[in-house]
Parts: sequence; structure tokens; C-alpha cells
Amino acid sequence: MEVISIGLLGLGTVGSGVVKIIENHQDKLIHQVGCPVKIKKILVQDLNKERAVDTNGSKLTTNVEEILNDPEIDVIIEVIGGIEKTKGYLIEALKRKKHVVTANKDLMALYGPELLEVASENNCDLFYEASVAGGIPILRGLIDGLASDRITKLMGIVNGTTNYILTKMSQKGSSYEEVLKEAQDLGFAESDPTADVEGLDAARKMAILASIGFSMNIGLDDVHVEGITNITEEDLEYAKQLGYTMKLIGIADLEEENVEVSVQPTLLPDSHPLSSVNNEYNAVYVYGEAVGETMFYGPGAGSLPTATAVVSDLVNVLKNMRLGVNGRSAITPQFRKQLKEPQEIFSKYFLRMQVDDKIGVFAEITSIFSEHGVSFEKILQLPNKQKSQAEIVLVTHNASLHDYEMIMEKLKQLKTVIEINSSYRVEGSANI
Amino acid sequence: MEVISIGLLGLGTVGSGVVKIIENHQDKLIHQVGCPVKIKKILVQDLNKERAVDTNGSKLTTNVEEILNDPEIDVIIEVIGGIEKTKGYLIEALKRKKHVVTANKDLMALYGPELLEVASENNCDLFYEASVAGGIPILRGLIDGLASDRITKLMGIVNGTTNYILTKMSQKGSSYEEVLKEAQDLGFAESDPTADVEGLDAARKMAILASIGFSMNIGLDDVHVEGITNITEEDLEYAKQLGYTMKLIGIADLEEENVEVSVQPTLLPDSHPLSSVNNEYNAVYVYGEAVGETMFYGPGAGSLPTATAVVSDLVNVLKNMRLGVNGRSAITPQFRKQLKEPQEIFSKYFLRMQVDDKIGVFAEITSIFSEHGVSFEKILQLPNKQKSQAEIVLVTHNASLHDYEMIMEKLKQLKTVIEINSSYRVEGSANI
Repeated sequence: MEVISIGLLGLGTVGSGVVKIIENHQDKLIHQVGCPVKIKKILVQDLNKERAVDTNGSKLTTNVEEILNDPEIDVIIEVIGGIEKTKGYLIEALKRKKHVVTANKDLMALYGPELLEVASENNCDLFYEASVAGGIPILRGLIDGLASDRITKLMGIVNGTTNYILTKMSQKGSSYEEVLKEAQDLGFAESDPTADVEGLDAARKMAILASIGFSMNIGLDDVHVEGITNITEEDLEYAKQLGYTMKLIGIADLEEENVEVSVQPTLLPDSHPLSSVNNEYNAVYVYGEAVGETMFYGPGAGSLPTATAVVSDLVNVLKNMRLGVNGRSAITPQFRKQLKEPQEIFSKYFLRMQVDDKIGVFAEITSIFSEHGVSFEKILQLPNKQKSQAEIVLVTHNASLHDYEMIMEKLKQLKTVIEINSSYRVEGSANI
Repeated sequence: MEVISIGLLGLGTVGSGVVKIIENHQDKLIHQVGCPVKIKKILVQDLNKERAVDTNGSKLTTNVEEILNDPEIDVIIEVIGGIEKTKGYLIEALKRKKHVVTANKDLMALYGPELLEVASENNCDLFYEASVAGGIPILRGLIDGLASDRITKLMGIVNGTTNYILTKMSQKGSSYEEVLKEAQDLGFAESDPTADVEGLDAARKMAILASIGFSMNIGLDDVHVEGITNITEEDLEYAKQLGYTMKLIGIADLEEENVEVSVQPTLLPDSHPLSSVNNEYNAVYVYGEAVGETMFYGPGAGSLPTATAVVSDLVNVLKNMRLGVNGRSAITPQFRKQLKEPQEIFSKYFLRMQVDDKIGVFAEITSIFSEHGVSFEKILQLPNKQKSQAEIVLVTHNASLHDYEMIMEKLKQLKTVIEINSSYRVEGSANI
């Protein structure tokens, strides 16, 4: 019987998972693709490093050429990460007619369209399900499962680290710094958490999701990003009182032909399906014109969950090989990208600020909103510990980003506004 | 440009949705499949009935032969429902090399393997995503998205009517009868709700899900079914106090090579992802060895959601036509069905009963459980309105179905047990 040979680039967390799954599920693989699947060579940095996983006869090498030049290798699985150098490897692989499966969101968010074109020119498959939301088969869900619908909105909790931090902050009433420390100790956050907590990791995934969901090339630069580092316990407490849950939400929104893609801390009504997605779990909420609301939930990271997505992509490559149709199922974007202007991006906002506790201040503030035609869903005015101050917490009705930014400018210039503590986007209405 | 011609069997709720989606999303279809898609003929019962949808030049006919005999028709979409007669139509269609997309769960639960074989013999596609959980692309998620994993458990809220009824009973504290009436008035329940409330509809879907998830032929007869008609407000109230939510849950469980498939009212911890799936929404929770927990959520029924699944299947048929690989992606079951014996089916149970309020009764009852090695997670003993009686509510630790049935028999024979009010399966532990 023929054997399919794989070249694996990388033997870290996800790479080890891939080795394990291919080994443990060999029967299922044979049943699905008709022949055994073997990892022939693995690219590593250090040949002598002790490995947690039995590589079962695969040849370890530090020389990528040994893999790219091997004519027996049909498929390259890339789990080393990195951008420019890795891009070079994958383009080489595709040019040598090797199919590629990658888990590399950084690479796909930056160079996805270019890589997909090279794949298509060479009749090769390039699949990247694992690059978004780990074990959740969301890309396939969008491409095949909702093939006939027009997706108009995607909302994602696509970063496990920040979701873990916000969940714990909200449950325990702890500060961001405390919870981050704890998350690092438990391995849910990196020692340098910047890419996660500043929203960059989520932005990469949203660029990929939006590109597929809306069938246009959305780049990382098109995504407006804001992280979670300024969120305070007080904000979470007020959110709770108002019936909202705070999440780091990636939003991709399509109106007519114009899109907005952003990542920011967002208040969702407690009853929203995304509000109960807790800890390190991910979920992607999809709104389609015909299907309405759907949601895909699961582990967003981790060795075996991510490896599952990688090997499922591999199975689809191998099925295509059996059918002789590799590289022919890719679909080029249907639409040219058109980004929304700030006047076209509508949202509700939560705003918390400290003001002078004087007669007329409240009227002064609300009149600024009225000038821009923005009204309120909820307003709380609370005495502050400092007697001469009051705290105002409000949730607006829909306002354009353009109007909201102008309102914020004007508020900052008011002498009676002592401090603007926080401002968050709000999606949907709480029932409280 | 070539045109793909479709024959549509049925122009009811889902059929009208299919017509609308194919009409409204023509551009997307052309982009994906490379040519226009047209519904050429539609089978209806009454040519003169007024239609809510513009059939846009499709020919209406009451004669199925006119569709099956039309050599220009490449694909049959079946949304008339029914079993024996419809099976005949689809087998005829497949023999005439027409691909089939169906939303018919009754038919697929009963004759799925036979129909799939005929499809395969004729190199035809037979897709049925819409037969389970309406707009949720769960079958494709299991087949492609989790292709490399070993699924060991599926739990589904796969019937919208019963989920609506249980949600409202729980939220309002109303009785089953009241809520059923309300659901019928709102169109969430049929005038004859038997198939829904007795669990039969859910059982059909679980047979289909388990067959795909475990890669074996599970028939409707293999599914143990219990409906929701005996659930009372009191049961829901106790469940809530104990930290559980009551849902009609389809469970398919694989241990070693043996499976159990059942549908019954089940208590889930409030924190379980399925517990917050409310109203008419459906969700399927999938546990895979490698991926861990995932969940697919969305509308389980309705004209456009179900039609989305139908047309997405159609897109996949058309892509296969373009690639020339129809009928070649089906995979025959990998395993022979082996059902678990009652000794092998383990679960926790909730039990509520009325007993004589006498010394020693409690000990008598608990000793019956101990004889079978079953211990308790929680016990409440409450005074009853009738002074000589007490109410006992308990949740057991894991017990085999065999042991539990024997315990129930013995309890019924005790003179001091006045009435056993209710008994439900419990999955997972509440944190209260």
C-alpha cells in the first residue's frame, strides 16, 4: 500500500500534538484517506533536545532544504510560527507542488492573499483552519456550512488569554495586574503578554475571519485595535450592575458593501451567547441574513485542540489528493474591500467620568450629546467619595464613531469634567 | 453560459426559503460555482394554491415524473417530508444520476444507509445537513472540521419546540400544559405536538448525529426515548435550587467500542454550555478526545435557516460537479454497531418522592441504594404539606442503568414510599 509522507516544520506545543494525533488516529486516517500517513521528516532547532513525544522514526533535521527537496514528501505542515522566513519556506514548498497546512495566523493575516495565489498557481491546497480559534472548525463552517448565506456580522472571542483574564477579573473582583500575574503562573498568559493583551493576536484572527466571511481581502492594517490593559474592577462592577458582561470582542460588520473590522473591550448583554463563554474558551458568533444567529464554541488554543484542526486540514488535503482536485477548491475574493468611514460606524457606548458636583453640570454634559443627536439608554449619577465630585456612568443609544469622538473631545475640554475614566463600545441592549 | 437546473420537491416553509435564497444569493452562487443556478420545476400538491413566494418562472407540477424524467435537471432538492413514497422518489432520482439534497430527518434516520449506498453506486452526492439542527452546519463540522479526532460524546438540544417549552416553564414557573398552549399559539409547537414532546423528533436527529460522529450505522430503534410531558414546575424548581438546568438532551456516548444513544429530560449544571441555550435555539455539544469540548449553536428550524443548510449542501454538490467528483467523498461507516448493555450505561440520577414521615424510613431507602453500591451527591428531606408525609429529593453519584432500574423497582415495593414523583438523568456536577 502507498504511504503519504508529511514534512513537519516545528516540534513545539502544536507540532507534538500533530505527531500524537497522526500516531493515535492512524486507523481513522487510513479509513478516510485510504492509505497510511507518515511524518517522514521534522524540522527542529536543536537535534539533541529531549522531546516529550515519541517521534516514531521520523527523521529530525535542522535543515529545511532536506524537507523541501524531498520528492517523496507530499504535504508540509507548518507549526514553527514566524513570518518572513516562514513565508519563504511555504512559497518554496508550494512551488515544489507540496500542499501546505499551517496554523500561522501572523503569516496568514499579513500574507494570506499572496500565499493563496501561489498555492492556486501551483494547483496546491493551502489550508489554515488552526490559525483561528484553535480547535473550532470555524473557517470550514463559514466556507462550506454557510456557503449559501450572506454573512453580515462576525463577533469573536478569539483570544483565550484575555478572555481568561476578563473572566477572572469579573468573577473575583480582582485587578488586571493581579489576574495577569496569576494567568502567567498558570500558563494561560505568556511572560511577554503584549500581543494578547493589546489585542494584536485577536486582530490577526479577525482579519482572517472577515476576509473569509465577507469574501474580500482584509489586512491587519484595516483592523482598529484596542487592548484590555486599562480595564478596571470598577468598570466591570458597573457593567455587571447594568446587566452587561465585558469581553474583548472582535467585530466585523458589513453594511451594504462597506465593512468595519475592530477589536476592543466591549459590553455585551448578559443574555448574549458570547457572554457565557468563559475562561480560556473561544467562540465566534456569526450573523447571516438567512440563517440568523449561529455560534461556534470551543478551545481556542492548546496542543491537541490546535493539532486537531491541523490534522483535519491534512485529511482534507489527502481527500483532495485521492480525488485529484487539489488547489481547485479555493475561491478568490468576490468583493473589493471598502472600509466604512467613521460616520458610518454606529455603536452604543459606555462612558464613566468624574465631574464637579455642581448644579448645571449634568445639563452641560447632556447638551453636548444632544448637539450630536445622541441620546441615552441609561444614566447613573453617583456621589463620589470626594464630596465636591460626582461620578457619572452612562450608556448611549447608537452614535456614529465620528460623533462620539467629537463628543469626547468636547467633554475633555469642559472644566467641570475632572476625569474621563473609561469608555467602551456596547453591543445590544441589556434587559435590566 | 451553462445553467444548472434544479428540481424542487415541495414548496412549503423550507421550500419557499430555498426559492428565496437561490434567487437572492444568485451572485454569490455564480461566484462560487461558476454558472447560474435555476429552479426549473417544483413539485406541489395544488397548482392553484396562492404562494407567498415568487417562483420566478419555475414550472409548478403535481407530477413527480415530470421532474425525475427531465434530463436537464441535475439536482433534486427534497423538502416535502414523508417517508416511504419520498424514499421511492429519491431512489429513482439517484438511479437517474441526479444528486440529492434533503432536509428529511425521518427518512434519513430510517433509511439513511440504504439511500447513501444507492447514491454511491450511482456516483451521486446525497447531502442532508438540514436534517439535523436546521441552520447549524453540524454534520459538516463533524465530517470535515473534526475529521482527525475521535468523537466520544455528543449531547444535543436538537428540538426547538421542547427547548422553547422548557425555557418558558423554567423562566415563568408555568405548567407544561400552559406553556404548550402558548407555544402552539405562537407557532413554536404544532397542533399535534406528539413527535416533538415525546422526543421522537430529537431521537431521529440523534440517530443521524451518532451515525456520523461514531462512524457506524445507528438506527432509530437503537435510541432510547423519553419525552417532556411529565415534567412539572416542582421538578424545575428543585433543579434550579440544586444548581441544575432541565433540558431535553440527546446523548450519544462511546466507550471503548460500545455506544449508547438516548433522548431524555436531563439535568445539566447551570455552568454547562448547553444550559444557556434557550427558547427555540438548538445546539450540539461535541466532545472529542483531542479537541476537548466544542459546541455548535444556532436556529434549529425555520424557513430561511433550514433553507440555508439546504442551499449550502447544494453549493457543495455543484462544486463537486465542477470538479467531477460527485459521489466520491462519501465514507462508509468504519465500525460495526455495538450497543452498550444496561450494566455499561452509567449516569447520575435525580429522584423526587413522597414518603411516610416516620423514623427509619430514610435509612430504609438509603440502604437500598447502598446494596447496589450507589451513593449520593445531594439529599434534601423536606416536610410535606400533609403532615404525615415527607418529600425526599436526591441526586445520586454514578450508577449503572441496570442498578438504577433495580433500585427503582425496590423503592416502588416499599410500603413507606407513597409516590415516586419524578426521576431524571443528570450529566455533570453543579457547583452549589
